[in-house]
Amino acid sequence: MEHAASATETPIRFETHPSRYVHWRLEIEPPLARLVMDVQEERALRGDYPLKLNSYDLGVDLELADAIQRLRFEHPEVRTVIVTSGRDRVFCSGANIYMLGSSTHAFKVNFCKYTNETRLALEDASQHSGLKALAAVNGPCAGGGYELALACDEIVLVDDASSAVSLPEVPLLGVLPGTGGLTRVVDKRKVRRDLADVFASLGEGVKGKRAVQWRLVDETVPLSKFAARIAERAKALAGRSAEKTGPGVTLAPLEGKYNEQGVEHRSVTLAIDAGERVARLTVRGPEDDEPTMPAAMRERGSALWALRAFRELDDALLELRFNRPEIGVVVLQTRGDSARLLAVDAALEAGKDDWFVNEVRQHMKRVLKRLDLTARTFLAVIDKDSCFAGSLMELALAADRSYMLAAEGGPKVALSAMNMGALPMSNGLSRLGTRFLGGGAQPFEGGRASIGRTNSAWPSKSGRASLRTPLRAWRRTCASRARRPWRPRSSAASPPGRTGSSSARTRWEKRAP
Amino acid sequence: MEHAASATETPIRFETHPSRYVHWRLEIEPPLARLVMDVQEERALRGDYPLKLNSYDLGVDLELADAIQRLRFEHPEVRTVIVTSGRDRVFCSGANIYMLGSSTHAFKVNFCKYTNETRLALEDASQHSGLKALAAVNGPCAGGGYELALACDEIVLVDDASSAVSLPEVPLLGVLPGTGGLTRVVDKRKVRRDLADVFASLGEGVKGKRAVQWRLVDETVPLSKFAARIAERAKALAGRSAEKTGPGVTLAPLEGKYNEQGVEHRSVTLAIDAGERVARLTVRGPEDDEPTMPAAMRERGSALWALRAFRELDDALLELRFNRPEIGVVVLQTRGDSARLLAVDAALEAGKDDWFVNEVRQHMKRVLKRLDLTARTFLAVIDKDSCFAGSLMELALAADRSYMLAAEGGPKVALSAMNMGALPMSNGLSRLGTRFLGGGAQPFEGGRASIGRTNSAWPSKSGRASLRTPLRAWRRTCASRARRPWRPRSSAASPPGRTGSSSARTRWEKRAP
Repeated sequence: MEHAASATETPIRFETHPSRYVHWRLEIEPPLARLVMDVQEERALRGDYPLKLNSYDLGVDLELADAIQRLRFEHPEVRTVIVTSGRDRVFCSGANIYMLGSSTHAFKVNFCKYTNETRLALEDASQHSGLKALAAVNGPCAGGGYELALACDEIVLVDDASSAVSLPEVPLLGVLPGTGGLTRVVDKRKVRRDLADVFASLGEGVKGKRAVQWRLVDETVPLSKFAARIAERAKALAGRSAEKTGPGVTLAPLEGKYNEQGVEHRSVTLAIDAGERVARLTVRGPEDDEPTMPAAMRERGSALWALRAFRELDDALLELRFNRPEIGVVVLQTRGDSARLLAVDAALEAGKDDWFVNEVRQHMKRVLKRLDLTARTFLAVIDKDSCFAGSLMELALAADRSYMLAAEGGPKVALSAMNMGALPMSNGLSRLGTRFLGGGAQPFEGGRASIGRTNSAWPSKSGRASLRTPLRAWRRTCASRARRPWRPRSSAASPPGRTGSSSARTRWEKRAP
Repeated sequence: MEHAASATETPIRFETHPSRYVHWRLEIEPPLARLVMDVQEERALRGDYPLKLNSYDLGVDLELADAIQRLRFEHPEVRTVIVTSGRDRVFCSGANIYMLGSSTHAFKVNFCKYTNETRLALEDASQHSGLKALAAVNGPCAGGGYELALACDEIVLVDDASSAVSLPEVPLLGVLPGTGGLTRVVDKRKVRRDLADVFASLGEGVKGKRAVQWRLVDETVPLSKFAARIAERAKALAGRSAEKTGPGVTLAPLEGKYNEQGVEHRSVTLAIDAGERVARLTVRGPEDDEPTMPAAMRERGSALWALRAFRELDDALLELRFNRPEIGVVVLQTRGDSARLLAVDAALEAGKDDWFVNEVRQHMKRVLKRLDLTARTFLAVIDKDSCFAGSLMELALAADRSYMLAAEGGPKVALSAMNMGALPMSNGLSRLGTRFLGGGAQPFEGGRASIGRTNSAWPSKSGRASLRTPLRAWRRTCASRARRPWRPRSSAASPPGRTGSSSARTRWEKRAP
């Protein structure tokens, strides 16, 4: 089994801090910041491949993701980040091909997904936080390196004999670019598609005036004028965003406890049952009343429940993706006081014009997208002590299936303003909107009418809580797959489909519309 | 080499006629028609798999495609087609899995693409010809059978103990439905996505009231009332479309000559160079002036150049896809009188409210989409005697790359109203619009300004015509691939990317914007 190998590998931890960065330097000069890539060849995340020519592995990319996140929360005074290379004669040569060559399929899928999420975070920061990004391409820029530049708002390429941008995957490797390069060339930069086709087949890439003519970069500048022009463009970009009233909010370490049985955070627990290939992911609501005014929320900083709990959830999702490939089914549960959670949501909605509150909302949105795009089967269990209210109700809406206890005085779910578009999926729609796409406005309006009130619109009967039926079905699937000549990849594993049918032994009901 | 085997197989011919149908009956009762599927088990297209339970192979599907085409041209009086089964206790059980199991990857890709194009043709007929389709599902309907029903405007399912609709690919085969089933369930029928997820994992499918509640079908009716209800709904559907003034136009046989060297049609030639893996596809414009008034065009019938030449082009594309898998590069050429072609386009534009002229335009659109989606590298060669004008200019716009002879008094290209949206790509945009997406309206407006006038906006120099550079590059690719341990599938083969660079020996120029 391909994924069994992972149990013996060192787990990957995603938390880091600028003081511990190995491959990047983050330099702050408000309103600008510089993110300087200087990959240390001998410091690969795991494995013995050298990271030559500013090529990257996951260890490089998670520092980049951390830097983008910290710029948004800790440095609201920064309005343009310059992404550049600290190396002579190379900007970035893309994902390390020796690392890719020695990785399992599942890891490569998750690697590309994560690195694309990092690039999407750059674009999200530009769109929703006024943090613009300028790629200062001061050397050859190939594959994933150009894909990183493409995620920036503008690309300036040094005009010399050797510096070109390229997507050499097709001519050199016979594969397609893996991190959104073709999509961004055509849909974002609107390169003419026949030129994009030529470009993607040129191993040596395109440089100089032609790169500008083809819209692959915005400008080329000789080395002698490069630094001055970058500074000029970066300031102009910064001028396009409104100033924010600082100070920033420091993101404190999460202090999770990791062991064989899972991850324990303050508000999030991931409990692993490796034998069953099932995990239980529990999110707990706020323990006390949370501050409701933006100034007080900023004061609470990264201890604010909405920020901390969703950072913990993000960490648990990455733990699942990278360190627990054997898990096929994740049971999602919530615990807490719905009224308190609805008050949190009300504060997030009322304060949305505050930069910090906005960042908290945008972060919740990104984490929920990460949940949507985590290729495991999520079963939400709405039981007696659950807290599927408002922003936590999104967990049930994001799940593949949800089961609600049918009992007298049983559980209730509740909607808030946060369910009405503040936390869109990758398709740009809310999860409620996506769910009721075919139902007209009626169910949606019904939801809107119940904002802020818990309800149990779905019928309740007395009964004992049990996920026996779907989990038994999952066990059957695992067993029957073990007998088959082929095995699906763990990331494609899905549960069986018997859960929609009735059973005298289950006391759970598939939630009806 | 996987595809080399095909040379010894019997070539597939796509032309047929209702009098020769093996697997379908086409019954005309204006304003209704019935397409009755009754697959003959022992009449597989090639191979020795039995076509049990109304399962289909390409031979079944090409008859369906022919029937839809003939309904549009030959039976304008028909406004609803009822798609049903002539067998007891089964509607259709989908693509034959033994056929799929014994096919090459390339064939399966082309099979799924073609069958989806057939289903798109049903939807296109509904949208653009007022020919509605009603699936009368009179028995179990699984996989590709349900995908066929999904392509109809409405689905009525018989309500009995055994008749269900299902997409059992995931639970039974561990693959995803191959002909747009999931997309149509969610995006067309707007089935709630969690229900769609459950549905796609239920091997036994969904029947009765639940199938209606989940929006998988529009209605269920007991067998005793089934025929009457189908007739009622079919007439109601027909009532939603305007009547057309017949008579229809008979589609005469094309009379192409097929041999090892290629296909010779009256206006289209496909010349195969198997050793080079290159084909030359030449389309010739009208030989004489064509009729310009709708009545005269109808009179000319299927001999009308715009209809005949595009039917021939369609046939050549299918020949390439299914019978010539070894071909990697197709050189597209045109011959003829641009002024005559622009007159054809003017007549097609002026007469577009006539049902027959509309059908000719819609057919051209579908053939050009088939070209867009044929996975070979197309190089358009705009040389001295070429006729890249109006609707034939779409061939150059559809090509991956186009090369124009640089010569004094050299070739000219021309646009017509037909380039301005009458022949959209699958993305809903014209090829010109797609090409200049990033250029704002300017180039597009420039094109509009030159409608009906030939132009040679691109510089000309004297010189000898030669495709030497791109074809030499292609040969290099073939040679280098032969040396590699892996080989790409033929359908993914693409040419090398050197054609954008200059060469002293080429007299061709990559067309500039």
